[in-house]
Amino acid sequence: MIGCGWAARFVMHGWDVTVYDPDPQVPARLAVVLDRARGALDRLYDQPLPAEGEVEFTDNVAAAVSDADWVQESLPESLPIKRDLYSQVQGTLGGATPLASSTSGFKPSDLAVDFIRAPQLLVCHPFNPVYLLPVVEVVPTDITHADMVPSATAILTQIGMKPVVVRRELDAHIGDRLLEALWREALWLVADGVATTTEIDDVIRYGFGLRWAQMGLFETYRIAGGEKGIRNFLTQFGPALEWPWSKLTDVPDLDDGLIEKITAQSDEQSGHRSITELELRRDNNLVAILRALKKTNSGAGKLINAMDARLERETNHQ
Amino acid sequence: MIGCGWAARFVMHGWDVTVYDPDPQVPARLAVVLDRARGALDRLYDQPLPAEGEVEFTDNVAAAVSDADWVQESLPESLPIKRDLYSQVQGTLGGATPLASSTSGFKPSDLAVDFIRAPQLLVCHPFNPVYLLPVVEVVPTDITHADMVPSATAILTQIGMKPVVVRRELDAHIGDRLLEALWREALWLVADGVATTTEIDDVIRYGFGLRWAQMGLFETYRIAGGEKGIRNFLTQFGPALEWPWSKLTDVPDLDDGLIEKITAQSDEQSGHRSITELELRRDNNLVAILRALKKTNSGAGKLINAMDARLERETNHQ
Repeated sequence: MIGCGWAARFVMHGWDVTVYDPDPQVPARLAVVLDRARGALDRLYDQPLPAEGEVEFTDNVAAAVSDADWVQESLPESLPIKRDLYSQVQGTLGGATPLASSTSGFKPSDLAVDFIRAPQLLVCHPFNPVYLLPVVEVVPTDITHADMVPSATAILTQIGMKPVVVRRELDAHIGDRLLEALWREALWLVADGVATTTEIDDVIRYGFGLRWAQMGLFETYRIAGGEKGIRNFLTQFGPALEWPWSKLTDVPDLDDGLIEKITAQSDEQSGHRSITELELRRDNNLVAILRALKKTNSGAGKLINAMDARLERETNHQ
Repeated sequence: MIGCGWAARFVMHGWDVTVYDPDPQVPARLAVVLDRARGALDRLYDQPLPAEGEVEFTDNVAAAVSDADWVQESLPESLPIKRDLYSQVQGTLGGATPLASSTSGFKPSDLAVDFIRAPQLLVCHPFNPVYLLPVVEVVPTDITHADMVPSATAILTQIGMKPVVVRRELDAHIGDRLLEALWREALWLVADGVATTTEIDDVIRYGFGLRWAQMGLFETYRIAGGEKGIRNFLTQFGPALEWPWSKLTDVPDLDDGLIEKITAQSDEQSGHRSITELELRRDNNLVAILRALKKTNSGAGKLINAMDARLERETNHQ
């Protein structure tokens, strides 16, 4: 899914993409994702995107990387599987080509063990749907070549993304650490019968989720501090870290019983819609929100305006 | 701030509001919040809202509650302060009037100790800005009168809110538990030098924050599970709860050093804008996002469409 999302983002921004995946269903799946991406990105920008790149499928990954300007590995979260692929491409990978991993959990230096081209390796971790959500976490190792981060961020910006360079390697980087913390708490709430999946989702999407689409955690809390500033907020809110609601920090046990409970609640919540329908609704909403932020020229909307300005310049230049 | 937000929401939806607050700055502050609310809500709905209610300030809280249809307590988070106020109003509070507390942390039964009118007490916890964000957590105690929850949710719906009834009393209810979990993790990331406040905010607002404005945690993960459903996602993602990135669950120490670090980073991030400017930008963005969701008739947008339909019926009926 993540690999198809990447392919769609690159293709829609004019890049030719060669796909290596032994799964015979991948061409059909990519065709669906490309359709989604077309439907979304055509409405996202005011200017037409460059002509779509071409997609090719290969069963020879070593040959495929030899003239690539970018390699994006999106294998399952398994160190042996990832390292095995790296060993297959290390003889042919171009010397200036970033090898980017989509890993959401591993540190790049865990991936780089025994990899001859380790100075070219970095994590570029996106979020679903990759063709629509701009953020990508860029994580180099101590031995990543100094050129790799600037050339990676330049390419990622060129395909409409917002690279955030992570200052220190850490399991799960930034985004998934935040998500995992919230996820643990949500699991407790369901396990303890405080709320159902629907109720938790409603608290998010009718509440702070709306704030976070346009302003993050710290800027929101800065406002909460009022004219006295965020220090006021921190000293006021700080003691809460000592209160009972911060004590429940054990990791919940996602056992069969809890899996059944969540599955049943989720079916009740969303089972009347197919995954395709949910995806289309999500994409429709994301495009609408991004277009709204484009009008206010805030956050992700600013990024889309910048892309539109660039597309316009390029068209005029031709 | 929360009390002014409540007052603005009620007034804008046609309710007369009596404000009790010994702070002499409150009338001026409420005037500002009312201006904000007007600017935002006028653009939010297609139909005109009912004529604004009137605002009155009082220094006699016992008299003020005697003919109120709703009492919203928004005192500082201190049990003695809250309980003291309750004791002042328990002789005059109308027998069918909900007494709702805005507390973000306390369980309603902690508030109800020694309160003669405990069966009328429940938590109604909103999120900032109260006049614009729809969600409100409604938490009764075991002894809250059976009529109170339905009459509270009816009134909250009438003023454009989305009440979520919490099934079990819990410190910090649902929303602030989720927020606090994420906040703890964000503090670790800053303390350990993994990311600055700007970088964390960017990961949120260019990433999963956009998803959460329209679809919550569980529905998003249901999509991630693909056609095989959320069970597939849970069994795939479950093991991550055992991985190292879930082990760091101690409560971070928000000491002076960390407060200084966050304050400096936040100043760097947002210090070029005043709080007023930040608030206006936030409200502008929220209105734009809510209008976008109104067009797709999703989540909070559906709620606004329902309100517009009701306002239209009421106008035609007159």
